[in-house]
This record gives sequence, C-alpha cells and structure tokens, in this order.
Amino acid sequence: MGKNNNDNNFVKEITNIEDDFAKWYTDIVLKAELADYTDTKGCIAIKPYGYSIWENIQKYMDERFKQTGVENVYFPVLISENLLKKEEDHIEGFAPEVAWVTNAGGEDLDEKYCIRPTSETMFSTLYSKWLNSWRDLPMVYNQWCNVLRWEKETRPFLRSREFLWQEGHTIHETAEEAKARTIQMLEIYAETIENLLAIPVLKGIKTEKEKFAGAEETYTVECLMHDGRALQSATSHYFGQNFTKPFNVKFQNREGKEEYAYQTSWGATTRLIGAIIMAHGDNRGLKLPPKVAPIQVVIIPIAGHKEGVLEKSNELFESLKKDFRVKLDDRDNYSTGFKFNDWEMRGVPIRVEIGPRDIENGVAVVVRRDNGEKETVEISKLNDRIKELLEEIHNNMFNECLKNREVRTTVAYSLDEILKNLNTNQGYVKTMWCESLECENKVKEITGAHSRCIPFEQENLDNKCAICGKTAKKMIVWGRQY
Amino acid sequence: MGKNNNDNNFVKEITNIEDDFAKWYTDIVLKAELADYTDTKGCIAIKPYGYSIWENIQKYMDERFKQTGVENVYFPVLISENLLKKEEDHIEGFAPEVAWVTNAGGEDLDEKYCIRPTSETMFSTLYSKWLNSWRDLPMVYNQWCNVLRWEKETRPFLRSREFLWQEGHTIHETAEEAKARTIQMLEIYAETIENLLAIPVLKGIKTEKEKFAGAEETYTVECLMHDGRALQSATSHYFGQNFTKPFNVKFQNREGKEEYAYQTSWGATTRLIGAIIMAHGDNRGLKLPPKVAPIQVVIIPIAGHKEGVLEKSNELFESLKKDFRVKLDDRDNYSTGFKFNDWEMRGVPIRVEIGPRDIENGVAVVVRRDNGEKETVEISKLNDRIKELLEEIHNNMFNECLKNREVRTTVAYSLDEILKNLNTNQGYVKTMWCESLECENKVKEITGAHSRCIPFEQENLDNKCAICGKTAKKMIVWGRQY
Repeated sequence: MGKNNNDNNFVKEITNIEDDFAKWYTDIVLKAELADYTDTKGCIAIKPYGYSIWENIQKYMDERFKQTGVENVYFPVLISENLLKKEEDHIEGFAPEVAWVTNAGGEDLDEKYCIRPTSETMFSTLYSKWLNSWRDLPMVYNQWCNVLRWEKETRPFLRSREFLWQEGHTIHETAEEAKARTIQMLEIYAETIENLLAIPVLKGIKTEKEKFAGAEETYTVECLMHDGRALQSATSHYFGQNFTKPFNVKFQNREGKEEYAYQTSWGATTRLIGAIIMAHGDNRGLKLPPKVAPIQVVIIPIAGHKEGVLEKSNELFESLKKDFRVKLDDRDNYSTGFKFNDWEMRGVPIRVEIGPRDIENGVAVVVRRDNGEKETVEISKLNDRIKELLEEIHNNMFNECLKNREVRTTVAYSLDEILKNLNTNQGYVKTMWCESLECENKVKEITGAHSRCIPFEQENLDNKCAICGKTAKKMIVWGRQY
Repeated sequence: MGKNNNDNNFVKEITNIEDDFAKWYTDIVLKAELADYTDTKGCIAIKPYGYSIWENIQKYMDERFKQTGVENVYFPVLISENLLKKEEDHIEGFAPEVAWVTNAGGEDLDEKYCIRPTSETMFSTLYSKWLNSWRDLPMVYNQWCNVLRWEKETRPFLRSREFLWQEGHTIHETAEEAKARTIQMLEIYAETIENLLAIPVLKGIKTEKEKFAGAEETYTVECLMHDGRALQSATSHYFGQNFTKPFNVKFQNREGKEEYAYQTSWGATTRLIGAIIMAHGDNRGLKLPPKVAPIQVVIIPIAGHKEGVLEKSNELFESLKKDFRVKLDDRDNYSTGFKFNDWEMRGVPIRVEIGPRDIENGVAVVVRRDNGEKETVEISKLNDRIKELLEEIHNNMFNECLKNREVRTTVAYSLDEILKNLNTNQGYVKTMWCESLECENKVKEITGAHSRCIPFEQENLDNKCAICGKTAKKMIVWGRQY
C-alpha cells in the first residue's frame, strides 16, 4: 500500500475539510491512493483502490442494465470529422473540447479523426446500416469505454480530460417507447446512487440551456456534496429524431412506410467516485459506503507478536472472507495506531481488532468507520453482527447525506434571496421560474449558480418567477456546482 | 437479430471453407453478427454477440488473474512523445504504427501525444513515481482497455487498428520472481485457451527476431487454425531492467542499496475471438465452445401455433435458464428450417426442439452443433443431460482441434523439406535450429513462414540445423501465420 511511512500522525497531513474543501478532496484522492496525476496533462492514473470501486459500480449497474435488455458492444474510439459534424448542435457543443488525430502510421491523414468525446454519431451511423424493419427495433446497446474531452480546468475523477464511463445508445419504434427508456435508465442511475453509493438524489429534467448538445430532453440525477455544492451525477437524454434524421436511421414501420427511429442515450462516469469522496468524507479521510467498498472489513491484530494472535487473526480472516471483502493487516513494520489511522483514512467501513485478551474471552472488538462506535462481539456471532452493522452503516451514511441536503435546501422568492441563501448555505435553492433563458442567465451571472433541474417532484411555492416576477408554473432548483 | 431474411437457404451464402478460408472467415464474422466494418478505416464495431464472447473471456481470465494477486488499474490512453521515446528498441518497434494527437481543445499542442499502442512506458513512468522500498514490491497491475496500432492490412478481430485487450505490467524485487511471473501468466493464458476456448496450445519462447520490442524474453501460446495457419494467441514478456533503467524505476533493497526493479508485461486480446472462429468453424458457420458461448442452448418450438407448444417451450426455458445461458426462439415470422440453419450458423452448441408429439411423450429432441447428433431426452432429465453434453461437446471440439494439429505437424531436416511440408499441410514444421538470425531469415524468405517458438517441450530430432547444417541444440517450430 505505497510508501513506507511510519508517522503515526500522518492523518494530520490531510487538509481540514472546513478550511479548504478542494484541497481536502485532492489530499484524499492522493493519500487514499485512489488515483494519481500523470505526465499526460489533465489525465489521471486510477490506482487499484480507486479502480476497484469502479469495478463494483460497473458490476452493479451492468447487471441492472442487462435485466432491462441492454446488450453491450464496443465501437471505435476514433470518429471522423465528417461524422462528428453531421448534427449541428452536437458539433457546436463538442468541437471546442475535442482532440484530433492528424497523423498516423507515419503519414498525415487526409481526413482527421477525433477521439470520441461521446459516441452518438458513431452509434447513429452504425444503426443506419443495420436498421431495416420495425421488427429490428428496439436496439438497446451500451458500451463501457474511455472518452476524451479537452477541459481547461481538471480535477481528479470530477473533471478529467480522459474518463471512463458507460454510454448507452438506443433506437426505438415510437417516441413513447424511447421516452420511457430514457426515464427507465435514469431510475437505474438513481437506484444505484442511493442503494449502492448511499447518496440521496434529486431527479429532474434539465433546462434548455443546460441540456446535452443535440438532445430534445436531458434528465439528470443531482447529488449534493458535503460542502453544499451540487454534482451532476448521471444523465439520460431523449433525442427524438434529432440524430436519426441527419444520420438516416430509418425503418419500414408496421404500415410499410419509412420512418426515422426515436433515440436515447445515457451515461454515468468515474465521476461517481468523486461523488462518494465528497458526499461522505470527513476529517479522518475517505468514508466508503459498505456496498461499494473494496475492503469492507479490515482485521488488525493487537500485539501480533504474542502467541496465538496471528493464528487467530488468520482464522477470523478465513471465516469473514466467506461473507465479506476482507483484509488482514499483519504488517509488522507499522504500529497499531498507524494502522488504525491508515484504514480510517482509506474509508474501510469496519475495523476488527483482535488481541490476546480478546482471544481469551472469545471476542473481538468491532469499530465503525462512520461514527467511531466500538463494540465487543463474540467471535461465534461476528459474521452475523458485521452483516447487520454494514447495513446500519449504509443507512446511517445515507441519512447523514440526506440531513446535510435538507439543512442546505432552501426556498427563495427573489434573486437577492437566491444569492443570500447560496452564500450562507450553498446547497439547493428552490424557486419558481418563468422558463426564460434570460432569468436563468441572470441567476448564473449574479450568483454563480447553474440550474440543477426542474425536479420531477414539483412544489407550488407561489405563481411568480423569483427572478423577473412574471407568471411561473415550474419550480426549479439552483445550485453552485462541481 | 438483424435483417428480416426469410430465405431458408441462406447458409449457402457462406463461402465454402475449403475454397477460400479468408472469405469464409469474413462471412462468418458478418453473418453471425459478431462484428461489422465502420467508417473508421481498419476499426471494427464489435456487436452484442461478439462482445458477449469477449465478456465471457474477460470474466474467466480476470478471476484467474486476481487469484494470483493481480490488481486492476486504469492509466491514460495518451502517451507523450517524450515518454514513448525513452526506450530505444521500443520506440523503434512501435513508432511506425502510432497515431498522433497534434491538436486538441482548439489548439496545436506543444508536444504531441500518441494513442497507446501498449503501455510499458506509461506504467514504467508511474512505477518510478510510486516505488521506494523493496517492501512496496511486487506491484502487479493490469488494465483492460483499448489500444491502437496503425496496421496497413487489417482483418476483423485478427488485426484491427484498434483492439481491446488486457495488459498486465509488473515490477519485482528479483529477476527470478519476475521470470516466474512471466511464466505464471503464460500458463493462465494456456489454461484459458484450452479450458475455455477448447483450443490446444503450443507453449514456448520466441526467437530474438520475433520477440517484443524492448523485451529480454517473449513467451507465447500459439494456436493452429482449421486451415493449418498459426495464430500467436497471447504473449508474456520478461523485460529484466530494460525499461526500469531508462525510466528510473528503482528501490532501496534489503541491503539498503538502490536497485532497479525487474519487470514483466503480458497481454491477450480480442484476437482470441478470431481464434475461436478459425479453429472451430465449419461450412455450416460458427461453432462456439460451450463455456464461452453467449447462448449455450437454443429452444425451438416445432409447430408453435399448436396448442400448448409455446407454453411448454416457455416452461423449458425457465427450467434450463437456471443452469445454462439459454434462448427461446419463438419468432413467428421465420420457418423452423430457417431457425435451425440460423442458430447453427451462429454456433450455438445445443438445439432443443419441442413439438406437439414430444410434449405428448414427455420428451424433447436435443441436437449437437459439433457433430449433428440427435437424441430424444426425457424432459425430467433434460438439464442433467445437457450438462453432460456440453462437457462432451467441449472435449470433442478440443480433440478435433488437436487432431487437426497432429495431422498438420511434421518434422523436416532441410529447407526444401520445410517448404514442401508447408505447401502440403501448412501446419507446424519442427526442425533443429542453430539459433542464427540468418537461418531464421532464410526460412522466412523461402517459405513465408515465421518461427512460432522454441517449444518448452523439446525433442531431439538430430543435432544439425535443418537450414545450414551446423550444430544445433534447439528444436524450433515454423509456421505461416495470421
């Protein structure tokens, strides 16, 4: 686990979370060995501990995708300029962030290729080749892959030039079916984030200004971080025929007439690892939700040099291994205190301590990472108790997040009030909104907040836009973002 | 499953395997919907049926990797020119095949980046950053990712500009440990190919001429295809300190002195899908080894419009689903004959037919894809019988491949004889070899065959090089390749 550092007090090296959240975040990423910077500017190396979290997310989501009929594919990373340009809004949105391959195999290329920033254009082209009849529909394909967007400012996991994600792209016979798929996938994201990552989500539709380049409608799940800033955590788009028309994705419908297919896409990225860090972490470091933690239980022998301690630790390891992802830390060149701090910093949900006296009494000491509570458990009941505790830890972490969100969610009736609330609390500010771009831009200009979404769960605060005072029927949520 | 084609005789559209093996291969790839060509020249789109095979291979190998302590990571796809150039043989080997990103985010870049053709340079750079003490060793990292090599001639799965693979990169305290890891991973490849893909492998070490750019030693598993050509199916490299010196990957050893680490890398690619096609396929199409087949059993209702047939088919489906990857083909717009041909062409190992008379008798008809054998099985015994049959099919497919290899493996004592044997049989030609590059080049020039490897299992044919007649202690295997 990295460098040979015997300093028991190394946890002090983490910036205080209240002093400088951004610095605290970077400290965690590096010290918990989730990722590191590389010579490729703006791109990170995801280390085993971080990647293992991603594997757990992948496994969970992929199973749920497949239950709804999603099939995985893999399409080329290079997209020709010609293809990328076919849908106008799309190229306008992505062109500034694209990386171009201009030379390959020792020769300058006649037509340059971009590294995919997203693959709507590639999927649409291939669908147009494969689609003939309504009987071929739906096509519900997804790929797990890397993408590249040349961001000016980057931050590990949250905004990296290269990142990993899944991108689902589907085509359907009817607009209704495509819209239902858009929502269905959003619900899978919401369920994953709440049930696996223990973060409550806000679900809604993006405004015209904030929607995906080329989409008819963009749906989002938004999460609130520890410091009250929002993180757009996954999105699902309904395209209508915006791509299928320029890309000529058509089929013979049940009436024997040609029709353009209806399309969706939806994606979730390694940004979710950033969400975990920022939603749950504290001054002791990372705090991992049990269901996604690469190590759920760490066993630490106390006085490991004494007779029987390592043997018993190994016995516990073998027994716990049957039910949990467990690690035995039997390193002899680190003190017990260092190990406690180290594994807390790495966010392992449960620590099991086992020493000579515990062995005599047939017990072990169990310590929760989420609230520090200690209890003594009979060894014969250890697996059962840990099962319960992991569930409790998950629920407690979810509730802590929810509480933070509730505390930081306010209502406002004027631009001044939006600004004041954000400056006090960050968080979500709910207002009524007249649906004009002008008002949305004004909020951004004055407060620095973007609209998060128009939530599915609407409340009727009053009937006036908080910004311009005109008639308003929709409640919107504002928040500063990562 | 693609186009709405009611032609029962479509299997005839596949080129005869003996007439034109290359054309037959492409037909299978396209018609079984494993992959398709794309607008990105030399890059394929892997379709659900093909990708699903890859997922099965990944799952199998990844589990075995992890059992030996491998940890997965993800490092950047872009490698700066400066990094790529640090190891001389390496850049010499890869430079001609590299694709360069020269413009990104709307600007020409000061330093260009290549898309990784392989990641020795990236891993070495990061290892140099992370490694301090012998206590940090070994680091045994692997990534599942895409790579790009700008090949002039491409063929789906076998030689694609972009392909998917895993690349393991490890560093060790001693040369012995690194060498042991190199062999350990080769053995996992061999076991995977034999046990999962039902293809016998030839294991050995590559010659100096054929080894990986920058390696001390390259080990290989070679497979013989249906037509007698060889396919290098996975490789494992021992680097010694060839990269760790220029990349400054050093550590404090147990004596407190600085030392450069010892390194390995090893990879297997989507080329394995090509191996499956070419090792097992026949004139009816693809023939999938049961353990890797996305669909192991297909159920085809006979006279599905008759009362009770679809119900019984669904019942069978639910019951078989518990033990196998199973598909019920209840399409009503295709004839039974079409379905038989279609699923045979797609290589599904077992077909189950169920019609009104079968239902009356409490039986189903089971047909093997590998040899066409039919049997009637009591429905109560169906799961057990299919379990046995899948095992038998695997063994039979392995043995068929082995027989093909045995028939096509010959011994030669002169260059003329090598040429004659290859022209008769293709296959492997064993000879003694004096270990000179000159003789190796001569074989290539005269026969078009490359050395496959110096097999681990040596035979003492005589003591003279078959090419030059000088003293020879090593037996080598030659073969024309894909």
